[in-house]
Amino acid sequence: MSLHPSVAAVRVGVRKALADLGAGPVVVACSGGPDSLALLSATLFEGHKRGLRIIGVTVDHGLQEGSAGQAARVVAQMGAMGADETMTVTVSVSSSGLGPEAAAREARYAVLEEVADRLAASVVLLGHTLDDQAETVLLGLTRGSGGRSLAGMRRAYGVFARPLLDVRRDDTLTACQVEGLEPWVDPHNADPGFTRVRVRTRVLPVLEDELGPGIAQTLARTADQLRDDMELLDAFADEVLARVQRADGLDAAPLAEQHPALRRRVIRAAAVAAGSPPSELFHEHVLAVDALLTEWRGQKWIDLPGHLRAVRRDGLLTFELSR
Amino acid sequence: MSLHPSVAAVRVGVRKALADLGAGPVVVACSGGPDSLALLSATLFEGHKRGLRIIGVTVDHGLQEGSAGQAARVVAQMGAMGADETMTVTVSVSSSGLGPEAAAREARYAVLEEVADRLAASVVLLGHTLDDQAETVLLGLTRGSGGRSLAGMRRAYGVFARPLLDVRRDDTLTACQVEGLEPWVDPHNADPGFTRVRVRTRVLPVLEDELGPGIAQTLARTADQLRDDMELLDAFADEVLARVQRADGLDAAPLAEQHPALRRRVIRAAAVAAGSPPSELFHEHVLAVDALLTEWRGQKWIDLPGHLRAVRRDGLLTFELSR
Repeated sequence: MSLHPSVAAVRVGVRKALADLGAGPVVVACSGGPDSLALLSATLFEGHKRGLRIIGVTVDHGLQEGSAGQAARVVAQMGAMGADETMTVTVSVSSSGLGPEAAAREARYAVLEEVADRLAASVVLLGHTLDDQAETVLLGLTRGSGGRSLAGMRRAYGVFARPLLDVRRDDTLTACQVEGLEPWVDPHNADPGFTRVRVRTRVLPVLEDELGPGIAQTLARTADQLRDDMELLDAFADEVLARVQRADGLDAAPLAEQHPALRRRVIRAAAVAAGSPPSELFHEHVLAVDALLTEWRGQKWIDLPGHLRAVRRDGLLTFELSR
Repeated sequence: MSLHPSVAAVRVGVRKALADLGAGPVVVACSGGPDSLALLSATLFEGHKRGLRIIGVTVDHGLQEGSAGQAARVVAQMGAMGADETMTVTVSVSSSGLGPEAAAREARYAVLEEVADRLAASVVLLGHTLDDQAETVLLGLTRGSGGRSLAGMRRAYGVFARPLLDVRRDDTLTACQVEGLEPWVDPHNADPGFTRVRVRTRVLPVLEDELGPGIAQTLARTADQLRDDMELLDAFADEVLARVQRADGLDAAPLAEQHPALRRRVIRAAAVAAGSPPSELFHEHVLAVDALLTEWRGQKWIDLPGHLRAVRRDGLLTFELSR
């Protein structure tokens, strides 16, 4: 029997992710949804061929009624599939300034990192698909913070890797069907109260209808290119920041001579370093501080989120507490 | 009587565009639509205050039934509004490899440039609004050629300037109403056969509904930032290209060491310089050529649009004719 193309697509992604790994165990983060279930199945197949130990981990956020029972079902399912070890980790999501989705995500990644560390895992695999990436790019459009917000999710960072970013969500669903795996349907995924759900169910279909099919792939490809671009520009900006940094602020004159793309990145980085919350620091703030450098006519300070003010004084651009 | 905010918004844009100009005449490209009519009106007001000569030019593409009569109406209207000189220029749109919209645009800009040259104009003002910019960004999403395709229209390039990129289309319409100007309604603007029309009438409204109002401004702001970013990266890539350029090709080893964001721009620029049509040279082509640099294992050439092939030979990356 020949391999079903959807199963093959998932395995290809996983194979690449495992190619250069050491001998440590591989953690697969698995919610029981079709993407992470297909990911686990492919990882068991590809990983066991390489003699790797595969550990299935499910995270219980405790946010939904019956989440503990759901976690137990996933653990049983992962065991039945052949995982060498399975576990549930529980996180408590505190509402910081982030939205509930972002807070849950942050808590989930933190606990997965802990688990990976404890197990000396060489990687934690996440099940995000090409469709998730396209949705992330569209969500980024609403933030308007330039290329950074359109660059989507990274293929790998720290201990994490996303082997399915080139795989369609439908392929993970088909792979589960072909392999007789029963995915869990997260009720959140149909709740239009979540912006991401509206992007998936209402925005992307309209884009496909009006602009042509293939828009999800196009968005994902754009994200790939923008990640490279943003990474390089951020690295250049770091160099500039190091050059203009003084004990009490940034040297205004050499900073003012930089290209706007670098100058504004340096301003943003310095403001964040001084304590301005990145999610509240808008491009308008950065532009206003930039005018202290390029249109200097003795203006007063610029107020920034985080009770900061940017001041130009004695040739230095300084970020200081406003209270 | 106080100034209506929509009229004020249009004038503010025009005032900034005229601020640093010389004494030469100002050409306003005017189709008779609300945006260019409001632009002409504001330019007459702001330009005459500065003693500038304002010339209204309408372009007859000869593509629609009765376009000559429409051009004559616009010329009469511009004269009645107080333009110092008015003219119709006729262009013939040949269908090159471009689509009909792109071909008409190219012909229009070429003839406006000629007119500006002949009149020794200091600027040609174009009526594109913030909404046009947002639509351009969304159209760019379908191309998937990274930040370049999302960077939208420039505020100024060559003799052209776009003073209304921060002004909403509705404000130009209101400004016309307030000033008693009767704009022409282009039937093309309601024809869903044009992708841009579908973006305007179907895509943007869904984005506003699902992601929140203000999405047009957000898209326009993103374009502003990406233009800066892309300009700087292109400049860096030009420097790299100059360093690795040899008589018969590009020096593969030093190019391979560059950051992917620069390497791929250099490859793209070199392929286009060798004759590959930019609109047919996709990112996949560039990535395949890139693999000749970074994953070199003696592979054959890569075929590129424009009957070119990229070959690695004797340490050089060369673009040569394939026939």
